[in-house]
Amino acid sequence: MKRATFYHAGCGVCAAAEQTVVNGLDRSRFAVEVVNVLEDRSRIAEAEKAGVKSLPALVIEGVPFHINFGAKLADLK
Amino acid sequence: MKRATFYHAGCGVCAAAEQTVVNGLDRSRFAVEVVNVLEDRSRIAEAEKAGVKSLPALVIEGVPFHINFGAKLADLK
Repeated sequence: MKRATFYHAGCGVCAAAEQTVVNGLDRSRFAVEVVNVLEDRSRIAEAEKAGVKSLPALVIEGVPFHINFGAKLADLK
Repeated sequence: MKRATFYHAGCGVCAAAEQTVVNGLDRSRFAVEVVNVLEDRSRIAEAEKAGVKSLPALVIEGVPFHINFGAKLADLK
């Protein structure tokens, strides 16, 4: 299983990306975790370390994929 | 089946998005088409009409999801 972590901030752009792209991933191949960084601020540093600059973002096996633009991660700190 | 069209320009950022995110989609639910707009420039207008501003981008059921940043669509015309 590949590890996929979706970081979001509860925004509309985030919700659309989650519903369509993240929920579209093949769950037989991906273990998906959804993280709202505003609800768990301790995960912001982790996202940043993975190279996440803005949200929503999907980190797959350590590689960040920014999907559209909701908010700058730096603005949420 | 949901229709997913991945527009790219053959760039490295595009290749990473294709290999990881697009190939991660559940093919039992998504009919995926991959389009290199530099090889088929007639598709640029179609991408633009769907709201694509930059590549790589994935359009799912008419909704554009820009994945990281490779090139501005307008610069490829």
